[in-house]
Amino acid sequence: MSRGTGYAAQSLPSVIIVGGGFAGIAAAKALRKAPVKVLLIDKVNHSLFQPLLYEVAGAVLDGGDIAFPIRAEFRNQKNIVVAMAELTGIDKSSKSVHVTNWPRPLVYDYLILATGVEVSYFGHEEWATHAPGMKTLSEGVKLRSMILKAFEDAERLEDPQSHPELTTFVLVGAGPTGCELAGNLAEMFRYTMKSDFRRFSPEMARIVLVEAGPRVLPMFSPELSEKARIKLDQLGVEVRLGHAVQQIDAEGLTVGGERIRSRNIIWSAGVRATTVGKWLGVGTDRLGRIKVAPDLTIPGHPSIFVVGDAAEIMQNGRALPGLAPVAIQSGRYAGEVIARKVAGKPVSPPFVYLDKGMLATISRNWAAMELGRLKLTGPIAKLAWAFVHIFSLLQTEDRMVVFLKWFYTYLTNKRGTRLIEKPIKEERKAAYE
Amino acid sequence: MSRGTGYAAQSLPSVIIVGGGFAGIAAAKALRKAPVKVLLIDKVNHSLFQPLLYEVAGAVLDGGDIAFPIRAEFRNQKNIVVAMAELTGIDKSSKSVHVTNWPRPLVYDYLILATGVEVSYFGHEEWATHAPGMKTLSEGVKLRSMILKAFEDAERLEDPQSHPELTTFVLVGAGPTGCELAGNLAEMFRYTMKSDFRRFSPEMARIVLVEAGPRVLPMFSPELSEKARIKLDQLGVEVRLGHAVQQIDAEGLTVGGERIRSRNIIWSAGVRATTVGKWLGVGTDRLGRIKVAPDLTIPGHPSIFVVGDAAEIMQNGRALPGLAPVAIQSGRYAGEVIARKVAGKPVSPPFVYLDKGMLATISRNWAAMELGRLKLTGPIAKLAWAFVHIFSLLQTEDRMVVFLKWFYTYLTNKRGTRLIEKPIKEERKAAYE
Repeated sequence: MSRGTGYAAQSLPSVIIVGGGFAGIAAAKALRKAPVKVLLIDKVNHSLFQPLLYEVAGAVLDGGDIAFPIRAEFRNQKNIVVAMAELTGIDKSSKSVHVTNWPRPLVYDYLILATGVEVSYFGHEEWATHAPGMKTLSEGVKLRSMILKAFEDAERLEDPQSHPELTTFVLVGAGPTGCELAGNLAEMFRYTMKSDFRRFSPEMARIVLVEAGPRVLPMFSPELSEKARIKLDQLGVEVRLGHAVQQIDAEGLTVGGERIRSRNIIWSAGVRATTVGKWLGVGTDRLGRIKVAPDLTIPGHPSIFVVGDAAEIMQNGRALPGLAPVAIQSGRYAGEVIARKVAGKPVSPPFVYLDKGMLATISRNWAAMELGRLKLTGPIAKLAWAFVHIFSLLQTEDRMVVFLKWFYTYLTNKRGTRLIEKPIKEERKAAYE
Repeated sequence: MSRGTGYAAQSLPSVIIVGGGFAGIAAAKALRKAPVKVLLIDKVNHSLFQPLLYEVAGAVLDGGDIAFPIRAEFRNQKNIVVAMAELTGIDKSSKSVHVTNWPRPLVYDYLILATGVEVSYFGHEEWATHAPGMKTLSEGVKLRSMILKAFEDAERLEDPQSHPELTTFVLVGAGPTGCELAGNLAEMFRYTMKSDFRRFSPEMARIVLVEAGPRVLPMFSPELSEKARIKLDQLGVEVRLGHAVQQIDAEGLTVGGERIRSRNIIWSAGVRATTVGKWLGVGTDRLGRIKVAPDLTIPGHPSIFVVGDAAEIMQNGRALPGLAPVAIQSGRYAGEVIARKVAGKPVSPPFVYLDKGMLATISRNWAAMELGRLKLTGPIAKLAWAFVHIFSLLQTEDRMVVFLKWFYTYLTNKRGTRLIEKPIKEERKAAYE
């Protein structure tokens, strides 16, 4: 047991997978019958179903509904050890990685990096305090508290209308996250919270969706983007296109020269790959994604794979988008390549992405769906959304319960998780009146 | 609007209720038809179903399953304003209260204090860091993380057996909370986590239940206490009776002269009333509970009521225990007395508690129940427990979902909420090996 970790000390080739999201889990599963010892590390103990994270922020679902313990997924896969630890460095020459809370570096024969993305402020990191983003479960829960607390603060005022910054919600970035959360909040304010307050009406709260580009859902076709914009407009969301945010502070933001007073700014404008690319010292694109070869390895290092959102995977001259199906397929591919290699089988053909289309949901009975030439909007797309998300993708142990909860909210507009976990604190800015 | 709060400015009598637990909510509901203006404040935005909090710590249920937004409960009661604020002082002479985040004192005609209890270390507050307690939702979620993280830490070790402090769980105090959590953890380790780890077997984890008194569940009859002790023993829980804890530190605790190494100590030994009694300057018992008159008011102040766990309510020469039915009945009584007073009706008869019995659950098919001379144990008591808790008491909007989740766990032993929300951090004590 010379290496001090047990798993690597045996004679089987060792595979270290960093990241337990869609890609990392798919890679580990593809190795289930291979004669290897797998170590999967993640800094959290759960895998998050990110496409539904906005439902946590919108108080429809709870953490346990969209996240599951990574190790529960591998209960019956005996060749894998799952550990909660964070990657802090990679040493390509000694083929080892450094992780937190571990006494020694961990040596690999194959390394799969599935480290995903994090919220990016594109050089304005100082905005993070005033405009939190949403990629992790704890960020989603924090956003929920922020949104609910704004109304609690307003209800304590004599005249909430004179303090519009409390009941103005600004979403920066009109990708799927921004659009889905905007629509979700509009419905929560209009229906769920209808009779909850006495001093103001939640349906009068402003929801502003700000986007630097010319349209919402830019990865969809222009036709669907326009339909989504109209739907958001019908829900009362103010969509502002074509202007980048110039300034964000504690009192609001400036966009296209206009000042919007708001204490509730949510950043959904962008993500970048984690710093892994820097540690590797290889080429990255402007989002920090690592440029990979057609077999998803990095140049000169055939034993290091990068998969999922962390990789820039080119296909037909374009980089694949950061979608769950891309993560799953690329992770599975890397696992299969390694399984073939250790079995001494011929070299695998390059990775080819099988397009599974795109989905975005705006309201409880409206979604947009695009798969090749097929374009759908409205309730039919929403039905497709519900089945794809809850039955095909979601892997929590009790997906039936999630479906019931979601369906219950759909039918009744009640949301049982409107909880602010932590007690209120005295604030300096209390004396509004 | 001279008082600056709106609610108190009208000519109707004002009732301020502090605390949105069982007692405060029952009081507010009893006032629903009274010609008064009610203000209910709580420092959190939710009411917690404390009897099931151990199921959050034990990863069976999520926060949203056992907590509901207070204001959702009063959606259709137009004479009430609900606000998230914390009481900081009471001025009996001017009949006003001070609360956080409010510019001016709030004046009341009637005051109902339903401020409940908090964890007490009986003069050893320095133990709080090493032995967290569990009364609030955020405390329950934190305990869940602590428990799950202990196993994650053990799985990173070469030889977890040589570090028993990681997989030793000590519960201090064998009241309902201690017993219920001990049984719940024993089942989680033995069944749910059975195949989750590679380096050790969770069923080998030690669970020690320490109690200074001579028996577990001391409020039950000795006969039921003994049956519960036997049941805990069968589940593998080590029950240590008759010795008070002498010392708790980061590495373990000392009890009856014996040292137990443990990094997972949970305090379930006691509670005390919040500091409200001190502010009032009235008589309290040794648990800080305010001594109230037979009409639940405090001596000399017929407009101040104390209800629920915060009050020492004497009945037949004994103080009533801190149970949900006592809280509900006393809260409702205070509301009704005020409703009668403002209606000019004759003085109400003194408060009389209608005994609803006691329930404690040890395993998924074993509970103890005592109501007067009726004593039940085993699956029948568990069935009673399930119905009382989930259908009669629990007030979340989606109790059907809670029931399904709980029933699903009962049938399958799967627990979907084994989540540690926050990512792991580098720890100084990492280099165990």
